[in-house]
Amino acid sequence: MGPSAQETQAQAPSTPADQPVRVAILGAGNVGGALVSLLLSDGDAIAARSGVRFEIAGVAVGDVSRARPGIPPELVTGDAKGLVSDPSVDVVVELIGGLDPARELVETALAARRPVVTANKELIAACGAQLADAAAASGVDLLYEAAVAGAIPIIRPLRESLAGERIRRVVGIVNGTTNFILSTMSEQGLPYAEALAEAQRLGFAERDPAADVDGHDAAAKAAILAALAFRCVVVGTDVPREGISSVDPVDIAFADRLGYVVKLLAVAERFDDGGDTDDGPEISVRVHPAMLPRTHPLAAVRGAFNAVFIEGAAAGELMLYGRGAGGLPTASAVLGDLIDAAHHLRAGTAARVVPRIAARIRPSDDLSCAWYLSIDVADRPGVLAAVAQVFGTHGVSIRSMEQVGLGDEARLIFLTHIARAGDVRRTIDGLRELDVVDRVGGVLRIVGDQDDG
Amino acid sequence: MGPSAQETQAQAPSTPADQPVRVAILGAGNVGGALVSLLLSDGDAIAARSGVRFEIAGVAVGDVSRARPGIPPELVTGDAKGLVSDPSVDVVVELIGGLDPARELVETALAARRPVVTANKELIAACGAQLADAAAASGVDLLYEAAVAGAIPIIRPLRESLAGERIRRVVGIVNGTTNFILSTMSEQGLPYAEALAEAQRLGFAERDPAADVDGHDAAAKAAILAALAFRCVVVGTDVPREGISSVDPVDIAFADRLGYVVKLLAVAERFDDGGDTDDGPEISVRVHPAMLPRTHPLAAVRGAFNAVFIEGAAAGELMLYGRGAGGLPTASAVLGDLIDAAHHLRAGTAARVVPRIAARIRPSDDLSCAWYLSIDVADRPGVLAAVAQVFGTHGVSIRSMEQVGLGDEARLIFLTHIARAGDVRRTIDGLRELDVVDRVGGVLRIVGDQDDG
Repeated sequence: MGPSAQETQAQAPSTPADQPVRVAILGAGNVGGALVSLLLSDGDAIAARSGVRFEIAGVAVGDVSRARPGIPPELVTGDAKGLVSDPSVDVVVELIGGLDPARELVETALAARRPVVTANKELIAACGAQLADAAAASGVDLLYEAAVAGAIPIIRPLRESLAGERIRRVVGIVNGTTNFILSTMSEQGLPYAEALAEAQRLGFAERDPAADVDGHDAAAKAAILAALAFRCVVVGTDVPREGISSVDPVDIAFADRLGYVVKLLAVAERFDDGGDTDDGPEISVRVHPAMLPRTHPLAAVRGAFNAVFIEGAAAGELMLYGRGAGGLPTASAVLGDLIDAAHHLRAGTAARVVPRIAARIRPSDDLSCAWYLSIDVADRPGVLAAVAQVFGTHGVSIRSMEQVGLGDEARLIFLTHIARAGDVRRTIDGLRELDVVDRVGGVLRIVGDQDDG
Repeated sequence: MGPSAQETQAQAPSTPADQPVRVAILGAGNVGGALVSLLLSDGDAIAARSGVRFEIAGVAVGDVSRARPGIPPELVTGDAKGLVSDPSVDVVVELIGGLDPARELVETALAARRPVVTANKELIAACGAQLADAAAASGVDLLYEAAVAGAIPIIRPLRESLAGERIRRVVGIVNGTTNFILSTMSEQGLPYAEALAEAQRLGFAERDPAADVDGHDAAAKAAILAALAFRCVVVGTDVPREGISSVDPVDIAFADRLGYVVKLLAVAERFDDGGDTDDGPEISVRVHPAMLPRTHPLAAVRGAFNAVFIEGAAAGELMLYGRGAGGLPTASAVLGDLIDAAHHLRAGTAARVVPRIAARIRPSDDLSCAWYLSIDVADRPGVLAAVAQVFGTHGVSIRSMEQVGLGDEARLIFLTHIARAGDVRRTIDGLRELDVVDRVGGVLRIVGDQDDG
């Protein structure tokens, strides 16, 4: 028998089939409001389609004095803790976001043997393993389909459909804000700052865009995807990330001419080359902008859409695509989980526990791929030789080079063969020491080519 | 409480967590061979990832004398019935295909309270509702993720993730053979017969290609998708279908120039315009070639890949993409179901029963969309007026017309506004009666435009 936590899972509580399932909703923002509206206005259709009728036990908000159109005032409460502890509540939906007070409320609910559905990526990325253990100990569900890629079914396929699959790689466009900004830069030739302002104007970016553009949001989602894909523990803060603020429209234009698009990718990889050791397989989880061939299925994911591309040993290539954010799409994912939790409650069971496998993170410097580098140099004889020598010294092999005049200067655009990140880093350091090099501009990984290792 | 069959579901049998799950495999073709190889060579990794260890109880084949490389001879039996009735068997996997003897074997297994996993689209399309009832009566699983679109998780998302979603439309490219042929016609400008021959040469089409090119295979999958999307009973033989053998490369080239691609689509639609009556909503399920805008996510699905596009009221647009056929991808989907069945066996439960809602099929003539029509006419004055009058008589409004010279003849290419299929049919009949019309050539629906009703 393989490792399994089923044996330690407690017997779940159960609920009669003819009674409505009472839902406590924590948080009444975009997603909470949309969920309330779905449950209130579409309850008959939901019951007919799913076999479950829901009843809202209460909606906990931070500021009870604020008007909440569409939410009946008698449902609104400022006492989230009291709502979670209400003995008439069957399922708790956490839509507050962030760690505090969400974590404590979720822990309280699970300890009281109430299933929890959450859309909180930060919470799951920070302490998903501990919360999963708490849920298993109580024999109840902890479901979080809405935490990654909004309406797209991705958590359940990774947890269940692909439970037997040797997943090699998961590559996701999981942040709509950055994808909108990069799409706008590409399609309208705008610089980053203008595309960001446009995204803010249209409501696709927050006034403080750091969580999105610096890759924090994508890193949390990458951690969740990796943990499920490889059955291991990955914490959001462990995920190295590069944001998009240094992506130059010039590099996007070059990428286009070379047949690539630039996307912010959440990447989770598992390496089989060294064989699995007792410490488990080596994996890598990271977030960075990258160049993708225009023919790659992810390249067509434009604007605020999300998609997750999965490469499995038996399944081959899969892609799941859809709306990654927004009140209704996210509420739709929450509703799917709620129906799951309700069926499990009735059957007196819970979603299966995902086994955990040890894994080691491969050091970033040891990761290999092809690279794009743009280097501004003085336009005089011998410069290319000097630059090429630095590549050679660090074992980085050049696949192609193109020179573009810039007045007294020239820009050299290099594509490399597969090269270790550590070697490329040392190459860049070496280039910066050359008198003839003014600037190392865009440095982008190339992902998804046939030979990208 | 909405309608639900849960109450009538029997208590499921259960299996201890520390014992291997014994699997009877019926059929040892491409998929059966790949499944045996996965279970035998990857058993440790599957157990570590899923918490379940499988043991093959036997592999039933039609011809025991044939060599089966990779399948241990002691597992092979010619007695499928005996294998299904073996009391040591926990789960039955049916990979024979077709109705006879698959149906009887599956019924026998379910009656004996053994969960069944099948990849048999014909079987599920023909009698999925009866088999689901038999499974529910025994309290065991009937799982068929592999029956539609190979490795792509589509059955589980429709059954579970989207259980609460008002699905408006499901549009699938679910037959790899026809998609390969149409892609080849489009990319190489080949006529249908040559593209078919190329597909046969490469193993993407059978020697007798009728099941694929006439749309039978896609119709069975459309019935399964519609039944899950709309929670109703749809049988494969109820699905009107048009194949691809009359698609002309000239029409594909015109489509390309107009910004469209030609794809064979399985379409399931639910109409909310008339409101749901006591007889349930009106739906349409059908298979036909159609023109899709080049910017539609399905338009990029090339070669033997499959994809299913889903439009939900809350979820918005979703697309699930991947390998729709082949031994390993299909075996991967079977394995995901096997792991489900094993977990359910252990918990003494079964996959939830999908409620059934009554629905009426809207008559084909009442379906509306925009159309492409290519008409060969004599090249003389007054012809266009005569042709246009026929459109007008039948209430079909012309969006654009283009004339191409063909020697003494001319070809008229029409795009219409949204028009009822019945009106278009009468228009075509009327055109054929005109002396000046030599031939009504390509007639293609246009699907996926913003205004396609």
